[in-house]
Amino acid sequence: MGKTYDIVPDGGITAPKGFKAGGLHCGLKKTDRHDLGAIVCEVPAAAAAVYTTNLFQAAPLQVTRESLAEEGKLRVVLVNSGNANACTGKQGEEDARTMRSEIAEALGVPKHQVAVASTGVIGELLKMDRVSSGIAKLPERLRADAQGSDDFCQAILTTDLVKKTACVKLTVDGETVTIAGAAKGSGMIHPNMATMLGFVTTDAAVPASLLQELLRETTDVTFNMITVDGDTSTNDMLVAMASGLAGNRELSREHPDFAAFADGLRYVCEQLAKAIARDGEGATKLIETTVTGARSDEDARAIAKTIIGSSLVKSAAFGADANWGRIIAAVGRAGVPVDVNTVDIRLGDIRVLEQSRPVPFDEDAALAYLKGDTVAIRVDLHTGEGRAVAWGCDLTYDYVRINAAYRT
Amino acid sequence: MGKTYDIVPDGGITAPKGFKAGGLHCGLKKTDRHDLGAIVCEVPAAAAAVYTTNLFQAAPLQVTRESLAEEGKLRVVLVNSGNANACTGKQGEEDARTMRSEIAEALGVPKHQVAVASTGVIGELLKMDRVSSGIAKLPERLRADAQGSDDFCQAILTTDLVKKTACVKLTVDGETVTIAGAAKGSGMIHPNMATMLGFVTTDAAVPASLLQELLRETTDVTFNMITVDGDTSTNDMLVAMASGLAGNRELSREHPDFAAFADGLRYVCEQLAKAIARDGEGATKLIETTVTGARSDEDARAIAKTIIGSSLVKSAAFGADANWGRIIAAVGRAGVPVDVNTVDIRLGDIRVLEQSRPVPFDEDAALAYLKGDTVAIRVDLHTGEGRAVAWGCDLTYDYVRINAAYRT
Repeated sequence: MGKTYDIVPDGGITAPKGFKAGGLHCGLKKTDRHDLGAIVCEVPAAAAAVYTTNLFQAAPLQVTRESLAEEGKLRVVLVNSGNANACTGKQGEEDARTMRSEIAEALGVPKHQVAVASTGVIGELLKMDRVSSGIAKLPERLRADAQGSDDFCQAILTTDLVKKTACVKLTVDGETVTIAGAAKGSGMIHPNMATMLGFVTTDAAVPASLLQELLRETTDVTFNMITVDGDTSTNDMLVAMASGLAGNRELSREHPDFAAFADGLRYVCEQLAKAIARDGEGATKLIETTVTGARSDEDARAIAKTIIGSSLVKSAAFGADANWGRIIAAVGRAGVPVDVNTVDIRLGDIRVLEQSRPVPFDEDAALAYLKGDTVAIRVDLHTGEGRAVAWGCDLTYDYVRINAAYRT
Repeated sequence: MGKTYDIVPDGGITAPKGFKAGGLHCGLKKTDRHDLGAIVCEVPAAAAAVYTTNLFQAAPLQVTRESLAEEGKLRVVLVNSGNANACTGKQGEEDARTMRSEIAEALGVPKHQVAVASTGVIGELLKMDRVSSGIAKLPERLRADAQGSDDFCQAILTTDLVKKTACVKLTVDGETVTIAGAAKGSGMIHPNMATMLGFVTTDAAVPASLLQELLRETTDVTFNMITVDGDTSTNDMLVAMASGLAGNRELSREHPDFAAFADGLRYVCEQLAKAIARDGEGATKLIETTVTGARSDEDARAIAKTIIGSSLVKSAAFGADANWGRIIAAVGRAGVPVDVNTVDIRLGDIRVLEQSRPVPFDEDAALAYLKGDTVAIRVDLHTGEGRAVAWGCDLTYDYVRINAAYRT
């Protein structure tokens, strides 16, 4: 299938029709970087969300769930960084509710059309005076241009080194539809943990229920296939909003352009997911692991994630070491059945294992390849049609420094 | 229950009656350290073994399985380091068989009473000329004293920094029974992977079937509760041999001294397991995680292992960071149900979380405690009687250096 969308290199979350965004510094971060931001839709947008599987879920996740349960529509997503509002008990829940009602009032929207998200320190109460004065100023900072998107992106970062956005355009019913996304996350970090937050905006007309299904399916093959350090935050959340202002006939699975839309959404989420992996704490490179020939996609996913999560594979990537022994050991402990005699492994295009036996290879070529900024690990099991791709990053001195250096 | 055994501080695997051991350098390691060793029992010892769960199992494991299946008795365990004889196909299997038959002939024992084990590089064929000439010299190096035990211990090491042994004495039917053990392992390491190998000797009379059950039960709460980096080698193996020369009436579960024996065995295995964790690659300290109040022991085990395996918890331990947020995040993603409102966490005796809410604590005292060479993480879930202990080590710059620096 050819590509059914066009990449918009500079597109941000305000590119789809109907969206504004903005950010400002309210005083939760110690630096003067933005720490409060919002995405606002001029009409009630069909909305969907997926949440962390961690049992300890932060207060804003509960409040966002309640909002979405009411009507499946959102006008506003309000996000703060610098404080995760997690493990903060009744007061934390009350604070998340206050954030929701204050921004709802400031923008004149029903509070159940507001989602809230937080990222930063856990176990500390929000400084609500700062949050409230920030919320009061936020409406005048909202812009429909690239600056609005940029300000929002800055407001959601913690130790991320780069802003993460992606945008595509495609045609639905002859109308141009735009899908854009922004994300943050680079590990569970300073001082206690960080978070994967993702936001997707589109002007397509798509019912909330279908958007929810699509978001879950897409997440399974994108955000759920990245690992920085195997730790799942209490605050992870991905929210999608569809304004419907593109003018297309409402999408359904039977719509002739449904596949194009789903594909565009997958591309946006995959780009964000890969950007998070590449910007993993201390990372110097992206590792992309492709598993083919598994008995099922699920088996392939389990193996790809085990490889990408192996500290030994990650250390070897950092050291540009063509260490296939660690890869096959990860394959063997992934918990799914594998024919131990039929495994091929390639690093980029360099064959290192065929039918489970070592193949002599050019060490210099392997070293040169592994020193690049992206390492592709390709495993073919030759037992079926199952396939998966997972993304991660190398394990470096800086990962240890970032995660050990706090407090001391 | 009081302690039913006495620790023998200098005891090695030759301490129980009937055992000799030894080691020598045959040329598989690049250094001049021993790389071939054996434990030999003067009578056919009741024997048992447990093996890695990795699907890719090295050739010596297959051969050892076959030996034990025949009669459940062993006279000899032959071990080489420097080469794991893994992913070596038919030739590797043939080489493992040759090792078995050559040592059997040299010592005049049936070959099905020989176990073989290997650790070191994977994917390379053994230099069998060197192994064979080593085997020929091995019988004259066997000794029943501490030197024999020491030589064997050196022969099984790869990048381990310290030899790992443990020994206890106890009374069964008024007879003194000795249980001793030796182990190696510090991660999956240079150049491709290393291995956990464990060897237990005892002079107790115990049937092979009971020894097998006990070994499995004991492994579940000792060796299977340690994590250095979450990677499971292709070569892991634990072998136990019981000479029966102590003179006790054969042990059974109904024997009045059975509990004492099981307890002594557990102590020996636990000491070895902790020694492996403490000697983990690059480790500066042992982390001991105790989970209590779980719904079942299984749930407690899952949570304890998730905590001990978290790169973030391990980095925090290296940095002496009282980072309870990472601990509770690990509890929440362990895949077992937890009441999110009733969790207590202590670091040593310092309470940091009570009923899932942060407790103010003395940061200086916490820092001083966490800088020690052992860190105890105690999690109480307050939902049942389930309990487990797991051991691991911190994640350090040296771990990354050791695992990244190969080849480059």
